[in-house]
Amino acid sequence: MRTAPVLWRRMPAIIAAHVSSKVRLEAFSDGIFAIAATLLVLDLAVPKPEPALLDGLLHEWPSYAAYATSFLTIGIIWVNHHTVLERMHRIDRGLLFVNLILLLFVALIPFPTKVLAHYLQSGGADAHTAAAAYGVAMLLMGISFSVLNYYALARGLFPEDRRLTFGRQVRFSIGLVMYAVGTAVSLIDARVALLIYAGLALFYVADPLLTAERGR
Amino acid sequence: MRTAPVLWRRMPAIIAAHVSSKVRLEAFSDGIFAIAATLLVLDLAVPKPEPALLDGLLHEWPSYAAYATSFLTIGIIWVNHHTVLERMHRIDRGLLFVNLILLLFVALIPFPTKVLAHYLQSGGADAHTAAAAYGVAMLLMGISFSVLNYYALARGLFPEDRRLTFGRQVRFSIGLVMYAVGTAVSLIDARVALLIYAGLALFYVADPLLTAERGR
Amino acid sequence: MRTAPVLWRRMPAIIAAHVSSKVRLEAFSDGIFAIAATLLVLDLAVPKPEPALLDGLLHEWPSYAAYATSFLTIGIIWVNHHTVLERMHRIDRGLLFVNLILLLFVALIPFPTKVLAHYLQSGGADAHTAAAAYGVAMLLMGISFSVLNYYALARGLFPEDRRLTFGRQVRFSIGLVMYAVGTAVSLIDARVALLIYAGLALFYVADPLLTAERGR
Amino acid sequence: MRTAPVLWRRMPAIIAAHVSSKVRLEAFSDGIFAIAATLLVLDLAVPKPEPALLDGLLHEWPSYAAYATSFLTIGIIWVNHHTVLERMHRIDRGLLFVNLILLLFVALIPFPTKVLAHYLQSGGADAHTAAAAYGVAMLLMGISFSVLNYYALARGLFPEDRRLTFGRQVRFSIGLVMYAVGTAVSLIDARVALLIYAGLALFYVADPLLTAERGR
Repeated sequence: MRTAPVLWRRMPAIIAAHVSSKVRLEAFSDGIFAIAATLLVLDLAVPKPEPALLDGLLHEWPSYAAYATSFLTIGIIWVNHHTVLERMHRIDRGLLFVNLILLLFVALIPFPTKVLAHYLQSGGADAHTAAAAYGVAMLLMGISFSVLNYYALARGLFPEDRRLTFGRQVRFSIGLVMYAVGTAVSLIDARVALLIYAGLALFYVADPLLTAERGR
Repeated sequence: MRTAPVLWRRMPAIIAAHVSSKVRLEAFSDGIFAIAATLLVLDLAVPKPEPALLDGLLHEWPSYAAYATSFLTIGIIWVNHHTVLERMHRIDRGLLFVNLILLLFVALIPFPTKVLAHYLQSGGADAHTAAAAYGVAMLLMGISFSVLNYYALARGLFPEDRRLTFGRQVRFSIGLVMYAVGTAVSLIDARVALLIYAGLALFYVADPLLTAERGR
Repeated sequence: MRTAPVLWRRMPAIIAAHVSSKVRLEAFSDGIFAIAATLLVLDLAVPKPEPALLDGLLHEWPSYAAYATSFLTIGIIWVNHHTVLERMHRIDRGLLFVNLILLLFVALIPFPTKVLAHYLQSGGADAHTAAAAYGVAMLLMGISFSVLNYYALARGLFPEDRRLTFGRQVRFSIGLVMYAVGTAVSLIDARVALLIYAGLALFYVADPLLTAERGR
Repeated sequence: MRTAPVLWRRMPAIIAAHVSSKVRLEAFSDGIFAIAATLLVLDLAVPKPEPALLDGLLHEWPSYAAYATSFLTIGIIWVNHHTVLERMHRIDRGLLFVNLILLLFVALIPFPTKVLAHYLQSGGADAHTAAAAYGVAMLLMGISFSVLNYYALARGLFPEDRRLTFGRQVRFSIGLVMYAVGTAVSLIDARVALLIYAGLALFYVADPLLTAERGR
């Protein structure tokens, strides 16, 4: 116990070093997630009064649907990112870069959202293309999230007893499959595809609220 | 006391785990609040020199009023969010999603602000619609904040002795009622409605400065 | 020493509570400062190739000067905000709102910057107005910073031995005076006013680098 | 050991003070990095359907290449900034300002990116100018990063045993040289220059993933 006073005195530095690396990764990631989600609102343009503002506002429904879907989707990935990062007991330099690829696709989301909202209003073949582009962007993000997860597993960044359960892994995979389905459906009907994307987001939001799951 | 040295050594990890989950929720939320508030400035366009720049600058007063009102409102919700989060001794997965719904409406605020600033200048029936849309957006945000509060109460996330006082609950409710009043008034006079929204924000800002309340 | 093991066990919660309130105020403020500074870049438009891109790029010099001046100014206020907050041993609810008023003017800076960059290129009387508007915006921000400082002094938020030195107070005041001078000068010559604003920012950046001051 | 209980009680305040200064510098910097990276997406405009949306989307490839290159580059500088800051055991007031200059150039990146994406599509001599401007912006950022590093060395902010290794210093320098090469090449061929910039970013991302380096 002779070492105790020394430990006390060095505790602040030890805590700072221990906390800082993961905290900074989380802070940077949280920043990207939060900014990408909030930038979505810039795509909502002031509607024209045709014939009155109320009509213009209501006519913009695809923009609101796309806004809400993308916002909730980014939020859900943030929660999952949070869950996965929290379970790691350490991170390495490679993880920073794998995480960077994921963030690249997260930060990209306002772009396909904007394209989808724009072309859903005009309809036609271009609406199909826009909905498919949205699905592909979501797939790329989902795949990078899986890569992050497998990288952490392969490098032993999770302690043995804190790995993701099989059930949670399956839940992540459902998302990937549904985005692939949505992308395929968008070639037939763009609005049904948007319904799939929105339904998926609502399912992920409602799921932990309906099940009385108490874990973080 | 034999366990003490072990506790010392594990302290950094314990602190990191304990702090991280709530801290990350707060960091993500703070990010959204801060970005939504700062994006408001993008709606202030370079005024035209008609007949001179000074006239153009002064003519934009509805934009400045809408900017200040929305900025202060977001800031006030941030302070309240801060107060509520601080009192929780733990959070759960459901709270992350309830919080996400609140953030969706917080991040939306630049949109009704932009619409209000634009149509207040042109006036007429569309100004009424714009002011009502602003009120509805604020109501939706206020309601999601109440839902967050009741969710936390229902799930026992507040320790018994740290629940919100009845006085504070009433103060939150005043906001909801005033936004409903503002929305109704906007159908008659858009500028009076903006005055109500602005007055509400100023009241919430001035209140803790006038009362010598010392709590955080 | 019987209470020691209890303290150990409760340490994480104590630290979290102690740290959280000031940390969250800082995090929210840092967010606003960082976003306001970074949004400035959005005002730099893709220049036209007239007659070639190089000419277009060089012709935009007022935008670059305004960008750099505003970026450094926001950065300097951030450093000062950092210094002042760091010295407080506690904060109160009123400070959150005084701080909010300061942030309102910080977040506003991209607007007068945009106006100045735009009208400096066109020149004439409107350039004078734009430079004066920029000075007024900076004055409002400087005054709110002083209010924050005096509020904290009046409420005893600084420990006796950590109050700002007289020298530092004087340095803050120089800024206010220079912005008033710049605003007055802008009515005569807009470019000289911009030179004053830029020189002030450079002075504040260079000062701690030239003097070998070792404090944080 | 009599002082132990006192230390326990004061521990939260000690930790808060110790952590806060560096943490706030990191938080502000992370904010700028994250926002600059995420703002890049605003430059991706909704493509025109000429002749169909798919053609418009594919025609925008220079925008996607510029987006990915700039995003990864900002991410890499963030990782390096992280590495350098982490090794410092203290910071001083001068570092805040040297860091501010670096952040000024980081926050600027969306501007040359936008110019490059725009003029790469039109081609010709202006594409050369745009690619050179991009290279110069990257060089300015790289040089400020080096200045930050040398400032910290000169002021003794790194503990003796945590200085950057010679190998890492060389790796940083490679970046500077390659940006100079890219800038020179851009006067001959803009697309080859973009390839060099993109290749450099990919090299820095892939390097720690290929080598099984375990450090953070």
